[in-house]
Amino acid sequence: MCITCEHLTEEEKEMLVGLLLDNQYALELLSSEINDIENGNKKVNQRQYQKLLTLYDRIRFEMN
Amino acid sequence: MCITCEHLTEEEKEMLVGLLLDNQYALELLSSEINDIENGNKKVNQRQYQKLLTLYDRIRFEMN
Repeated sequence: MCITCEHLTEEEKEMLVGLLLDNQYALELLSSEINDIENGNKKVNQRQYQKLLTLYDRIRFEMN
Repeated sequence: MCITCEHLTEEEKEMLVGLLLDNQYALELLSSEINDIENGNKKVNQRQYQKLLTLYDRIRFEMN
């Protein structure tokens, strides 16, 4: 759950995600987050980590 | 409307927006898009441009 996202409307979230995907930043953002987790710089539970990996693969192989 | 977003679930969109906001990339992404539009490198209608400006201000002044 994304707490800060609650301040944004659905349309605003769509705009941000659209910008991310249109500019190919989504993969960069995800891989940097995954690297931080794997290097121990960030702590997330296994389920969240798995979701990040799945989303990375989906964007990389299904949307490019 | 974000066409590519349709491939993503609500949870996936929330994860991406959460990463953007947590890592302070949202403002960078928005300002680079706004600069591209103002420099004529990207074409959007006035309404979309206004929405980007509004979202930039909301994130900058309401969420930081």
